[in-house]
Amino acid sequence: MANPNGAKTDPKSTFLNVYSVLKSELLQDPAFEFTDVSRQWVQRMLDYNVPGGKLNRGLSVIDSYKLLKEGKELTEEEIFLACSLGWCIEWLQAYFLVLDDIMDGSQTRRGQPCWFRVPQVGLIAANDGILLRNHIPRILKKHFREKPYYVDLLDLFNEVEFQTACGQMIDLITTLEGEKDLSKYTLSLHRRIVQFKTAYYSFYLPVACALLMAGENLDNHIDAKNILVEMGTYFQVQDDYLDCFGAPETIGKIGTDIEDFKCSWLVVKALELSNEEQKKVLYEHYGKPEPEHVAKVKALYNELNLQGVFAEYESQSYMKLTTLIESLPSKSVQAVLKLFLGKIYKRQK
Amino acid sequence: MANPNGAKTDPKSTFLNVYSVLKSELLQDPAFEFTDVSRQWVQRMLDYNVPGGKLNRGLSVIDSYKLLKEGKELTEEEIFLACSLGWCIEWLQAYFLVLDDIMDGSQTRRGQPCWFRVPQVGLIAANDGILLRNHIPRILKKHFREKPYYVDLLDLFNEVEFQTACGQMIDLITTLEGEKDLSKYTLSLHRRIVQFKTAYYSFYLPVACALLMAGENLDNHIDAKNILVEMGTYFQVQDDYLDCFGAPETIGKIGTDIEDFKCSWLVVKALELSNEEQKKVLYEHYGKPEPEHVAKVKALYNELNLQGVFAEYESQSYMKLTTLIESLPSKSVQAVLKLFLGKIYKRQK
Repeated sequence: MANPNGAKTDPKSTFLNVYSVLKSELLQDPAFEFTDVSRQWVQRMLDYNVPGGKLNRGLSVIDSYKLLKEGKELTEEEIFLACSLGWCIEWLQAYFLVLDDIMDGSQTRRGQPCWFRVPQVGLIAANDGILLRNHIPRILKKHFREKPYYVDLLDLFNEVEFQTACGQMIDLITTLEGEKDLSKYTLSLHRRIVQFKTAYYSFYLPVACALLMAGENLDNHIDAKNILVEMGTYFQVQDDYLDCFGAPETIGKIGTDIEDFKCSWLVVKALELSNEEQKKVLYEHYGKPEPEHVAKVKALYNELNLQGVFAEYESQSYMKLTTLIESLPSKSVQAVLKLFLGKIYKRQK
Repeated sequence: MANPNGAKTDPKSTFLNVYSVLKSELLQDPAFEFTDVSRQWVQRMLDYNVPGGKLNRGLSVIDSYKLLKEGKELTEEEIFLACSLGWCIEWLQAYFLVLDDIMDGSQTRRGQPCWFRVPQVGLIAANDGILLRNHIPRILKKHFREKPYYVDLLDLFNEVEFQTACGQMIDLITTLEGEKDLSKYTLSLHRRIVQFKTAYYSFYLPVACALLMAGENLDNHIDAKNILVEMGTYFQVQDDYLDCFGAPETIGKIGTDIEDFKCSWLVVKALELSNEEQKKVLYEHYGKPEPEHVAKVKALYNELNLQGVFAEYESQSYMKLTTLIESLPSKSVQAVLKLFLGKIYKRQK
């Protein structure tokens, strides 16, 4: 895609240009009669919540699609469509985040107050979250209605959203249960939460979008799906690790998983490795906001050498995932998955 | 549909049986790995929120479909499918109500505490609302994936949900604006809120579901759609009227539209009919919780003879709608719309 002076625009600028197009289409959607005030409201709500993240999920649709096309030059239309699907994932993410922040009573998100904390917004944010979700089928209908894979796209987004909501549910319920009894936090429960709440939409969905655009039948890519879900699980374990052991200036936040009684990979591993006495420390100090409790938990994590346990997990995961990827029949799908793996292996943020 | 002793089961029992089937399917959905606790949670959440209403919207899919089939005996499968679509509308309604109650800070719904007020539920209710919404495409995929109208069903539910969320948005924003300036409450704004927030999903959606099942192309039924939306508007005007003038023991609740600063048809009409002095009364007393303020507003409504104005509106609407219905080309579609109109004309609850 060339701009007037003939130079290539970088992928992120192209992606952001598509955001502007999609936004203006939504603000002119003939299925609703906007008032001026409501149009301004939606515009501000979109700009506040949709484009401000790292955009990794959205951008990875285009990267994946390019690899699937094996280096063939993409048409303007293909670029636009791949970017649109990328934005659908970013819209989905925005929808989850707006509602999660309300449920968790969070303060900030992406360096600014959570949307529901903005004056005049309040719980209208819940409906704004729903609007964000509803924009996805509007975008899909406008740009993909005549594609042979349109119905598969609808099914895909529906299924992944369902799985994410289910993951969020067990996460929320588990915290209720865990507060009564820490022994409910097991590795199998942790895997289940992470797989459903994060892995499907963050790892599988972008690749599945690219596969559909490339004319593939998703039923033929179950192995790739399973690997991506595994990779998403590994990604979330890293997240749990960095929440406690990452550098706040690098990860951009101060972790509070211990205070918040989160079913983190670290507490699950700690429970697994603890003797009776060490378990008592966890039961007594986990999930309490005061720094002295948090310090006790961190001291135990060090005593159990969780940094070493994590390093071992990380290199095992990397080897396992690499082997799995190389067993896939398609070289271009292998390339897509290797790209994802390379981006997250040993990440510090 | 005959039961073992050969007697006909009544439509409502049939409908409720289908609820049980859909519920157990959702609780066994292979797209998610339930834990025991989460399965119980969903079961309780569904029973609490889905089947407890009047079920008019859901039941009207079956009634409509029967009329479209012009008295032909329906097969077991047709009955099951029509009931399933009816339940999808009830699920949609449950989803809206769970979230609306959170946003409005409501206390009770259908004679019991709002779901988010139930101990241990709290704001997890927001995610439960999302789960309810996500159950709809699960039901559609399981039972309609192979039907030629599957993609149209998905588009229909998506579009109607979008319109409802937009209607809810202008309702919420309008109340913010109206609190600063009552003159924002106009008939055209009222029409817009009501049309989008209520009419599409309550009136158009059930008939559109029946039309799709009957093999019709919705593009050929734009006139019927417009009439149904008009009927939904009339229905909501009745609702606004009954909130103030209905008998609480008949409508099952004590109206609080005046206290809540609602953009009700009554206040819009009152503003339209008031002289400068009467307008002052509205500006001073509308939207205040104390009974003395409410009494002043009600006195003005009587002074302006809003009961008479409403009676006139009601008979005008009825005549207009009847004429429109009779101009439709299809006798069976006429029959469907007359059924709807007959059910709501001069209703007291």
